[in-house]
Amino acid sequence: MENAVLITIGDEILSGNTVDTNSNFIATELKNIGIRVSQIFTISDEIETIKNTLQSAFEMGDLVITTGGLGPTRDDKTKKALAEFFNDEITLDEVTFEHLRGYMERRGRLDILERNREQAFVPAKSTVFQNQYGTAPCMMMKLDGKLSFSLPGVPYEVKPLVKDQIIPYLKEHFNLNYIVTRIISVVGIPESILADMIENWELTLPENLTLSYLPIGTRVKLRLTATGDNERVLQQQLEEEIEKLFPLIGDSIVATTEDKIEKILGELLSERKMTISTAESCTGGELARLITSNSGSSQYFMGGIVPYATEKKIEILKVSKNTVDQYTVVSEQVAQEMAKGCQQLFDTDISLSTTGVAGPGKGEDGKEVGTVFYTIRVKDQERTFKLYMPHLERADFIYFVSQKMIQDLVRILVNG
Amino acid sequence: MENAVLITIGDEILSGNTVDTNSNFIATELKNIGIRVSQIFTISDEIETIKNTLQSAFEMGDLVITTGGLGPTRDDKTKKALAEFFNDEITLDEVTFEHLRGYMERRGRLDILERNREQAFVPAKSTVFQNQYGTAPCMMMKLDGKLSFSLPGVPYEVKPLVKDQIIPYLKEHFNLNYIVTRIISVVGIPESILADMIENWELTLPENLTLSYLPIGTRVKLRLTATGDNERVLQQQLEEEIEKLFPLIGDSIVATTEDKIEKILGELLSERKMTISTAESCTGGELARLITSNSGSSQYFMGGIVPYATEKKIEILKVSKNTVDQYTVVSEQVAQEMAKGCQQLFDTDISLSTTGVAGPGKGEDGKEVGTVFYTIRVKDQERTFKLYMPHLERADFIYFVSQKMIQDLVRILVNG
Repeated sequence: MENAVLITIGDEILSGNTVDTNSNFIATELKNIGIRVSQIFTISDEIETIKNTLQSAFEMGDLVITTGGLGPTRDDKTKKALAEFFNDEITLDEVTFEHLRGYMERRGRLDILERNREQAFVPAKSTVFQNQYGTAPCMMMKLDGKLSFSLPGVPYEVKPLVKDQIIPYLKEHFNLNYIVTRIISVVGIPESILADMIENWELTLPENLTLSYLPIGTRVKLRLTATGDNERVLQQQLEEEIEKLFPLIGDSIVATTEDKIEKILGELLSERKMTISTAESCTGGELARLITSNSGSSQYFMGGIVPYATEKKIEILKVSKNTVDQYTVVSEQVAQEMAKGCQQLFDTDISLSTTGVAGPGKGEDGKEVGTVFYTIRVKDQERTFKLYMPHLERADFIYFVSQKMIQDLVRILVNG
Repeated sequence: MENAVLITIGDEILSGNTVDTNSNFIATELKNIGIRVSQIFTISDEIETIKNTLQSAFEMGDLVITTGGLGPTRDDKTKKALAEFFNDEITLDEVTFEHLRGYMERRGRLDILERNREQAFVPAKSTVFQNQYGTAPCMMMKLDGKLSFSLPGVPYEVKPLVKDQIIPYLKEHFNLNYIVTRIISVVGIPESILADMIENWELTLPENLTLSYLPIGTRVKLRLTATGDNERVLQQQLEEEIEKLFPLIGDSIVATTEDKIEKILGELLSERKMTISTAESCTGGELARLITSNSGSSQYFMGGIVPYATEKKIEILKVSKNTVDQYTVVSEQVAQEMAKGCQQLFDTDISLSTTGVAGPGKGEDGKEVGTVFYTIRVKDQERTFKLYMPHLERADFIYFVSQKMIQDLVRILVNG
């Protein structure tokens, strides 16, 4: 059991209506138990397409996981395709129907049990994994020593099915290899220069280690992955290789374990017992969302404010009206006063502020779309930065600015 | 030119490190000019795999778009695979190199021009579309009247390449069919009941119309798509079919055009000239982010606050300390006082508040993970709701609560 193939079934992904996040979740979970996803097929909900893709997938991998296409409505055809592919017939599974009854009962919806009865029909040869958070069961099929699991498409049903049922099943029934990954976060060196600086190191990596470059904003993540049968040995191998990086690019390494910048920040702040707050205009809450997306953030995040209207910046954050009149609301000076006011309002060691124009509409003071000023205030030291990124769409602009601010703050905390 | 196939190249997607958002963007853009994405392949950065997938893709579609695998580093192999697949050789393109020089010059990075020189090497038969926001060019190849475009993987480079160059090129060179889509947002009816209620309508839809169900939180989106050569006729067809839905489920339809709930809210608030503000604890800024993700939200969103620490709820939002002591901070009463304080602080018609435990760590007052109270306050009317969703992970919990609150608010505004 080394290679998995994922099949995402659903016209809503192909039409651009929905972003497929299930594949990402499943790939991460499988990676943690040493199973590599070698390919993902995203296909439409048509019987022939599903059958052909199952065929290709079983040729490529030992494990096939499908998501989607199991709802109670007319446009879902996955179950039929499954039965045809495995030369099986679809029959009512009593256990599954009882589970369904219990599910409906707990929700006070026994009135619609009959309407959902079809959900309890499964291929006769399948092993059913019951869905605790929805009505479509997960079905496991076997083919020549290979396995397939068919799941519904709703992310909050997929996650517990994978985590609590499929992963434990795979761990119990197969001898799995370990895959251990470390992420080295590097800031301030463009990807091409970084590649040059560590080329000799990269060329001498052991055979069972692989390296990838993932540029995110102004940070490059180096992902180092080791495969083998002894987890401890792999961890040691990775540690040794990472140590060799420090003489080469040590000053630019901000973390060697955590992947997400908000977690790196969380660890730094917890370690140093520092608190933080945010005052956001153009990022509209994304900065607070990003910081609080880290579990345990209530230990250091005291609060945030989104004073979108200019008068709220003046009233709540005590930004001076003169400053706004003289420099306009999208200015270095207003960013600084927002940070100062925020630090006082929430009584924190650190405060972050943003003021800018995310677009596509122009700002009220005529500042160009894509302009942002942000201030990072640590104790009584502050730094203000300007970015101008007219090429980014609204959502990307907000994301980029928020990521970059946290990266800058991490760098300031690490390097002083 | 009717069918497109997308190929996403990159181990970072397969390993679960990165969510593929490019496919979603490209699929949406293509849909708007009448090109349907029939399949998406997500594959690893290996020459043989890329070549085999190009083969399959050209068998399935008239248009193939690849993203990823064009960076300056050692782990990118796409260009080599492209040249081999098209029996071509890779040569230096002077125009592309000059473009690259200009790009570096504008960024004051002429010092790394030579290091990026490799980026100006392209298959000799390719037509180059210059990348304004990065160093990897986009290459178009032709094969038996079919087309392929190869793009870098960075989303903010992909978007302008697709929008400003590829889409206009396709519109100019091909006679395209139109695809028109309408989204009908239905709240308060479970998917299976809804399917029953509109079954007769669905069965009599014209041949060129297709229907999909997309459940999102407590809302079901019905996506109705029409294909044909006359845009006006298609729009009229859709309008007529949607009209027929009103006698069946009219009370539960909250919108028939906009797809995103934050846009639906934005239109409602703008139309009624109402203002809104947010006070968030467990959603950590997501609600403000969601509302402000709609362009033009500064017209109605006055501001938001994330008083994460309990004492900030008391100080800034004037939540009474007695209420906190008596009912704990995660309570109906605190949610209500937060909404009231928020409405006063930002002086708005509507205010929304949340207090809960997103987990995975327990809340300080011992309330169970997955509990949230939220208040929707419109003028002097308020409604408070409780949700308990222990099965959701932190990020999903925050997302679900925020989506549901906006849906509830829309429903309240529409139905009173």
